[in-house]
Amino acid sequence: MTITNGYKQNENEKELDILNLPALEQEAQKIIPTGGFGYIAGGSEDEWTLHANRTAFQHKQIVPKALSDIEDPQTDTRVFNLDLKTPIMMAPAAAQGLAHVKGEIDTAAGVAAAGGLMAQSTYSSTSIADTAEAGNGAPQFFQLYMSKDWNFNESLLDEAKKAGVKGIILTVDATVDGYREADIINHFQFPIPMANLTKFSEGDGKGKGIGEIYASAAQKIGPKDVARIIQYTDLPVIVKGIESAEDALYAIGAGAAGIYVSNHGGRQLNGGPASFDVLTDVASAVNHRVPIIFDSGVRRGSDVFKALAAGADLVAIGRPAIYGLALGGAQGVTSVFNHLNDELKIIMQLAGTKTIEDVKHAPLLDIKY
Amino acid sequence: MTITNGYKQNENEKELDILNLPALEQEAQKIIPTGGFGYIAGGSEDEWTLHANRTAFQHKQIVPKALSDIEDPQTDTRVFNLDLKTPIMMAPAAAQGLAHVKGEIDTAAGVAAAGGLMAQSTYSSTSIADTAEAGNGAPQFFQLYMSKDWNFNESLLDEAKKAGVKGIILTVDATVDGYREADIINHFQFPIPMANLTKFSEGDGKGKGIGEIYASAAQKIGPKDVARIIQYTDLPVIVKGIESAEDALYAIGAGAAGIYVSNHGGRQLNGGPASFDVLTDVASAVNHRVPIIFDSGVRRGSDVFKALAAGADLVAIGRPAIYGLALGGAQGVTSVFNHLNDELKIIMQLAGTKTIEDVKHAPLLDIKY
Amino acid sequence: MTITNGYKQNENEKELDILNLPALEQEAQKIIPTGGFGYIAGGSEDEWTLHANRTAFQHKQIVPKALSDIEDPQTDTRVFNLDLKTPIMMAPAAAQGLAHVKGEIDTAAGVAAAGGLMAQSTYSSTSIADTAEAGNGAPQFFQLYMSKDWNFNESLLDEAKKAGVKGIILTVDATVDGYREADIINHFQFPIPMANLTKFSEGDGKGKGIGEIYASAAQKIGPKDVARIIQYTDLPVIVKGIESAEDALYAIGAGAAGIYVSNHGGRQLNGGPASFDVLTDVASAVNHRVPIIFDSGVRRGSDVFKALAAGADLVAIGRPAIYGLALGGAQGVTSVFNHLNDELKIIMQLAGTKTIEDVKHAPLLDIKY
Amino acid sequence: MTITNGYKQNENEKELDILNLPALEQEAQKIIPTGGFGYIAGGSEDEWTLHANRTAFQHKQIVPKALSDIEDPQTDTRVFNLDLKTPIMMAPAAAQGLAHVKGEIDTAAGVAAAGGLMAQSTYSSTSIADTAEAGNGAPQFFQLYMSKDWNFNESLLDEAKKAGVKGIILTVDATVDGYREADIINHFQFPIPMANLTKFSEGDGKGKGIGEIYASAAQKIGPKDVARIIQYTDLPVIVKGIESAEDALYAIGAGAAGIYVSNHGGRQLNGGPASFDVLTDVASAVNHRVPIIFDSGVRRGSDVFKALAAGADLVAIGRPAIYGLALGGAQGVTSVFNHLNDELKIIMQLAGTKTIEDVKHAPLLDIKY
Repeated sequence: MTITNGYKQNENEKELDILNLPALEQEAQKIIPTGGFGYIAGGSEDEWTLHANRTAFQHKQIVPKALSDIEDPQTDTRVFNLDLKTPIMMAPAAAQGLAHVKGEIDTAAGVAAAGGLMAQSTYSSTSIADTAEAGNGAPQFFQLYMSKDWNFNESLLDEAKKAGVKGIILTVDATVDGYREADIINHFQFPIPMANLTKFSEGDGKGKGIGEIYASAAQKIGPKDVARIIQYTDLPVIVKGIESAEDALYAIGAGAAGIYVSNHGGRQLNGGPASFDVLTDVASAVNHRVPIIFDSGVRRGSDVFKALAAGADLVAIGRPAIYGLALGGAQGVTSVFNHLNDELKIIMQLAGTKTIEDVKHAPLLDIKY
Repeated sequence: MTITNGYKQNENEKELDILNLPALEQEAQKIIPTGGFGYIAGGSEDEWTLHANRTAFQHKQIVPKALSDIEDPQTDTRVFNLDLKTPIMMAPAAAQGLAHVKGEIDTAAGVAAAGGLMAQSTYSSTSIADTAEAGNGAPQFFQLYMSKDWNFNESLLDEAKKAGVKGIILTVDATVDGYREADIINHFQFPIPMANLTKFSEGDGKGKGIGEIYASAAQKIGPKDVARIIQYTDLPVIVKGIESAEDALYAIGAGAAGIYVSNHGGRQLNGGPASFDVLTDVASAVNHRVPIIFDSGVRRGSDVFKALAAGADLVAIGRPAIYGLALGGAQGVTSVFNHLNDELKIIMQLAGTKTIEDVKHAPLLDIKY
Repeated sequence: MTITNGYKQNENEKELDILNLPALEQEAQKIIPTGGFGYIAGGSEDEWTLHANRTAFQHKQIVPKALSDIEDPQTDTRVFNLDLKTPIMMAPAAAQGLAHVKGEIDTAAGVAAAGGLMAQSTYSSTSIADTAEAGNGAPQFFQLYMSKDWNFNESLLDEAKKAGVKGIILTVDATVDGYREADIINHFQFPIPMANLTKFSEGDGKGKGIGEIYASAAQKIGPKDVARIIQYTDLPVIVKGIESAEDALYAIGAGAAGIYVSNHGGRQLNGGPASFDVLTDVASAVNHRVPIIFDSGVRRGSDVFKALAAGADLVAIGRPAIYGLALGGAQGVTSVFNHLNDELKIIMQLAGTKTIEDVKHAPLLDIKY
Repeated sequence: MTITNGYKQNENEKELDILNLPALEQEAQKIIPTGGFGYIAGGSEDEWTLHANRTAFQHKQIVPKALSDIEDPQTDTRVFNLDLKTPIMMAPAAAQGLAHVKGEIDTAAGVAAAGGLMAQSTYSSTSIADTAEAGNGAPQFFQLYMSKDWNFNESLLDEAKKAGVKGIILTVDATVDGYREADIINHFQFPIPMANLTKFSEGDGKGKGIGEIYASAAQKIGPKDVARIIQYTDLPVIVKGIESAEDALYAIGAGAAGIYVSNHGGRQLNGGPASFDVLTDVASAVNHRVPIIFDSGVRRGSDVFKALAAGADLVAIGRPAIYGLALGGAQGVTSVFNHLNDELKIIMQLAGTKTIEDVKHAPLLDIKY
């Protein structure tokens, strides 16, 4: 165990024997310090939306296809011109040094080993270059929290491009931090530096509360920013934090190469809908113009299946992967991805769908209760 | 602590460190005597409507507006020709001396400091003049429980007008007291005099049960009473206790300058709908002819947002402010208002709405479960 | 306390201080022997329908009528050519000697004192004549469980007619006893004789299980039986146990002078709907051709109001009155009726309805959750 | 008690005093070893579908038919050209030696005594011939888990035909095993040999996990397999595991002589609908072309009634019968069937339906909550 600024960082590196992803949370809670765990696990206000993210999946059911004459379902897929072994990707998530001493470096390695797509967060504990290198050639996206300081933005984008990322995820649902009570109760301040912030005047994030970090972030984000980033990077820009058909079209109009349906895992706008509840409408409006990434509440193979069937092209997980990171480092992350992908394969076989394309065309049943 | 007729009145005067408004209730319960707390917190019958007032908010969700290019949302608003710093106002609530020795005087001062609108109740512990003076020039409304004795009504209205109130709230949903079991269990009688009753033959309310107080109140209230009060005061009269589109139009027909959608915090007609459940229909019928005030169950910034988006122009709170009063006097009330307004601002930013007008035009999503 | 065949019968005679009717159940449980209490309180199978009888009321809400200019609501009503002080009546309920040594004699006296309508059950602990006499001139109905032995039926009808009952309630939803697990668990057998059975070959019910009692009851009941009873008695015959519009019209076609919507308090067909859930449809089909009596799950003034607003002309209670009987004899029954009627009056005033006719025309709101 | 490979097999042979079927589970849990009980009782993933199988019944209610003039309802029925005393049949269920030393032999005897239809599973603890013989002339079906090895399939079908089974149930919803966490937690491996596997190269199932057993099962199952089995056996083939109208028609097109609506008791595709929730749609599409068998979640007489009214011709139970087997051997199974049939008869009488045909034509009410 490493102690950084008084915070105990785990150093586990091992394969995990996973029963299911929800069960990881309490295991992780035992080894992640209270403040860090509260930051990772918590949602905003009374966590209604956080909770709804899970229950929403219960209201659409998988209609199995009997006598479908298939075996050995395959989870590989091609999205954003990337060949991936699984439609499950890593959501961009801040400050993974809270879970493990190697932070995003281990996450990137673990995701790469599982054949998934990694997304780095602006607020990573490790640097863009280091995290990219850990990916060992596997594709990565870089997520941008836009700063008020455009020089800072450009510097990050330069570094990301130099590191070879395949796309930029622009987060637009966090222009101020959600009201997260766990952080307030724990008087939480980031004990671990955020690598991308250390070279800039904003400081390194260490010893700051989440509110202070956000203070230097841009609140005003509009279509012109999307256009500007596209122009600057010449990379596909995916707009993250879309929760309505209207906004999806607006973002595509602004040049978005992908739509990321998410409510930030229930950490931002509490009182907004569960992400899964709006996915069908968004997908219907997007109508295959660009790919759709989905996150918020995914814990089961059946959740991944339902999200794909409801219109997602990629399905991201955040907290469960971070718990895997805490418990087993890179190998733990791989274990989490492999477990979820295995659950998905079982569902695919039982539902009578051989490929991810088949899943995307599978019907769902609306359940009234 | 002051002991009045054997009842212990709090004397706290301090800023509060508030996590959220729901959490205030148990803090307040520790310091308000049982009978007083039961009177404040309780609802009628089996409290179904009281409970539904909270859960109703879960069935409409906020649709965030991404890429809205806004920052620094503003909560100031203009309603009833009044300029207010927040759309959150104080609901008229009786007998606040039960919570704090300074009663409505502190509430008025606290609300004024937060830039909100204060409403005095007929059954206030403090006099109209004293409460008005404590408001220090900030706008106030006066709420009238109509007595059977019209001289009494005129005397109160005279005093209110003299004190400079900006409007009269006529409560029409309390022509008899709801069946409040907490008061019966506690054998509750008002230990603190009601200042507005002391100079009249009805007595001062001290030592009376709620039933006896209501006994001198008018049960028969009709459109002609609205007209009569308008004529007598030449002030805007807002009819409080409207729960249907039909009644809203009936009240406007009778001359109402405002509609107050409320079920009295679940204290009167149990078995009636949650107020939030009828707000959209009422607002649709009112169609901006007059402003709408809403209360019943508001505890979160997201609740305030939803009420405004569903058609309210002002959103009132009662119990949470009284708990703030008990715990911190005038400063406690200010803390409660500021906290709720801060939560509202976060929601506004995250929802992509810069002004209260924007909020009023924000869509809500109907959730089926 | 009287001990009959080893069963302890209560002898309380006193006015009750009632908080609410649901709270009576546990008070009564303390003083009624286990077997008797299980028989009275229990439902059939897993008691889904018993439970649904209560929750159904939550799905229609009272729309208050503001500015209705009324006071002093009146609960008197005229139904079946009878002038009653309250629309609340006593449901026919068997074996009330289980609750109190004086059984239906005290119930009849208590109901009469409250100005309600009494219904005697075929399986009463006390005789038709004695129970009628206790009613002291107040109107009573007699409920018939049809026997396979038509002589027995005629004998009961003769006695009922001689005793001056104003109508016959023919129960058609109990052609076999529901599967009541409490009775099986308690090995319940009736310890108290059933007065109407003692003079007949069927025996007196003492020491029999409910199954044996029903064994001599007719299972085949059809329209011709309704006609035959009408012809024999020349009294209005109300068919009890109707749960659909179709059956209501069928019964009226057979000559029924009233429709009694009931699922026998959840004691018979478990898996059938809550009675309140079908009331509106039944009333719509009946369309005022004959009066409608409603029971099953009524515990609150708001329940009575909703049942009347949904189409009932009279609203019956069973278990709560029997608990009142156990706790206070005739005075206890009166206390229960008066309490419920008082709750109803409060609701009437708050809803803006002055008369029972007004209540019957009051709208209800369908709540989706 | 017999100990086989360290596993304690019950040897009870006695009539059971049954209160209700749900209550059997905890009784059985006391006497079945943990691994075996987990295998029998468990569902897949988080058991949402397992749970939904029960709650689904609450959303359709039985509409009783009053004045129907019937008595003495009869449960005999004719389906698949078989005369049965009850519409309740035994679902094919694997490895009943886990519950009782005599396994399917006792089940077959017990079902026969109750006049029901027995279905043998491919993975039975006892052989086809022995189980058939125990049925003592009563009709049986044989359920086939198709192997990748067609010789194995033909050998089983030969034996089944020789044993005189009246139909083949082809299970198509188990082409891979569901993700059953209880088995993983218990490190469950089959301690008891599976008789039908012992003579084949696949081994006997002893000491294998469920995953290994499935490994030799066919995953690819299509319409041609249905046709091939029909051609080979010249017996009616019922396709089991249908959950949609589309699949039912597809199976009938492939030659199916019956449709078996089931989600395998929530043991396979978690996240799929409750079986009862899709039954009406399937039955509507099938439109009496072939009979429908239904299982998944049946525990009460009212469940059987609802399933028949929703379109089933036969209603199967699995777990409750196995619990009866554990607790009382053949007599225990008979007790379970008789109890459930008795509950059904009560419901039939109370619903006003004299025959199973009447039940099939009974209306159900959709309940919104």
